[in-house]
Amino acid sequence: MSSSTQFPPLKGDASLLLAYQLHSKRVLLIGGGPVAASRLTHALEADALVTLLCPSSGLCPELLYRLSDPWCKSRITYHDRPWLGTEDLDLDGGADMVLSATDDPGVSKSVCVAARSRRVPVNVADVPEECDFHFGSTIRDGPLQVLVSTGGRGPKVANLIRRRLERALPEKCGMAIDRVGELRRRLRARAPGREEGKKRMHWMVGICEAWELEDLAELEEGDIEVLLRDGWEKGKVLSPKDLGKVGKGKEKVDNGLNWRREGIAGLLGAVVGAAVVGLAVFVRSSR
Amino acid sequence: MSSSTQFPPLKGDASLLLAYQLHSKRVLLIGGGPVAASRLTHALEADALVTLLCPSSGLCPELLYRLSDPWCKSRITYHDRPWLGTEDLDLDGGADMVLSATDDPGVSKSVCVAARSRRVPVNVADVPEECDFHFGSTIRDGPLQVLVSTGGRGPKVANLIRRRLERALPEKCGMAIDRVGELRRRLRARAPGREEGKKRMHWMVGICEAWELEDLAELEEGDIEVLLRDGWEKGKVLSPKDLGKVGKGKEKVDNGLNWRREGIAGLLGAVVGAAVVGLAVFVRSSR
Repeated sequence: MSSSTQFPPLKGDASLLLAYQLHSKRVLLIGGGPVAASRLTHALEADALVTLLCPSSGLCPELLYRLSDPWCKSRITYHDRPWLGTEDLDLDGGADMVLSATDDPGVSKSVCVAARSRRVPVNVADVPEECDFHFGSTIRDGPLQVLVSTGGRGPKVANLIRRRLERALPEKCGMAIDRVGELRRRLRARAPGREEGKKRMHWMVGICEAWELEDLAELEEGDIEVLLRDGWEKGKVLSPKDLGKVGKGKEKVDNGLNWRREGIAGLLGAVVGAAVVGLAVFVRSSR
Repeated sequence: MSSSTQFPPLKGDASLLLAYQLHSKRVLLIGGGPVAASRLTHALEADALVTLLCPSSGLCPELLYRLSDPWCKSRITYHDRPWLGTEDLDLDGGADMVLSATDDPGVSKSVCVAARSRRVPVNVADVPEECDFHFGSTIRDGPLQVLVSTGGRGPKVANLIRRRLERALPEKCGMAIDRVGELRRRLRARAPGREEGKKRMHWMVGICEAWELEDLAELEEGDIEVLLRDGWEKGKVLSPKDLGKVGKGKEKVDNGLNWRREGIAGLLGAVVGAAVVGLAVFVRSSR
């Protein structure tokens, strides 16, 4: 499409991956089955306010359970009736996002047309062409979230890939994010000036390059103090070693070689080899 | 927040991760620096139509380059002027998404207020509270896209994690998605009935469980034919072994043990051990 030595060529046909913020936004959810329940979960975890539209006869056990839970209930406005038309977009102050999860193609179509007429982002389960966005396979570890998307092309393969990535994630990634956040906060408190912004950013990048995730996750209050006092103040980026730490991360990363394992195997081999030859000589000489 | 043995408790404070579809949607982009250039790249790769608003004096080299490229140019409507106000949301047919990347806090604020008054999703670079969504650190391999998000809490750590995940991804993940897509298409052509939908889904899940990503990536036309003819038709899920394949994936996955490596180390050790004892005996007996 375009090429330059300086700027990378563009590859079209992608989705735009986003971390949508729904805090105190309103999501209109139409439907009552397991897919609707899964959508509700996603919306509530993102701190959305939810308007749920479904005749009570169509509510699945999970939705009934969520509606009986005090915390969930406080975030859900439930209407015991089906979708009636465009004016439902105005319910409870108006929808910022619309999720349809019904089996009725007529309802799906009507919901999609209504939402698009107002440019409100809409997802209709199982109907790609009626979706302004897709959900994918996700991982969550506290503040860390990972989305694996195949642009709706292969949900099962997305799950396979998600599982592979899950195994590769260090155990305490979420914790690492929290600790780095704390370091940044403390740095800002120590050097708050706007003119120091670039220097702060540079130093934080340096830390993230010198430390592996496993080590960042173990940053304690005292370590942060040392990093700032003996590092930042002296224009230095201290490493885990400088802080007398083993540096767990690095070892694990070096592309999977495991010298200790191979060393033991070699040693065992040597002993066996020696024993065999020794035995042969012994047997021979004692004949 | 809520708990049940049957349904998982909810953990709030998350983002809603989405794969947004921008094909032939219009993105309004305000700004001309490197951040604006990066936003433009994302929008164009997602096949969006872009309205770019920036005085020509403020265009960075990358934007100038993109505007000179025929393919990009055909997707960008460029207005050589600054943001004027809410009515700019109607430019070129109206914006479905607004991205602001200027250094001017007044402009940022005005763009955000305007977009929110119409419920058009907006992102203002570097101002979290003026963002309806965040970008994160991403990986792309053809149809595969991965987003690493810290909810705006730590872009540098997100990059660290992204690099770690990148190393863990099998080389041909995108290819695996394509091949599975092809298998699904061929299966649908062979058993198109709606009543067979569940059976088809079941079988595809079985394939994705029996095959590793590395093996799926190598699925050739002939293999697909065999999978369908000797597998699907007989109600069976064939494995890579059934097709006379080595099954590369499985070997690689088994949690990093590398028997061949250790075997060679052991063998070498045995030879060395044998040689040492042999030499000792030889030296002793020739004295």
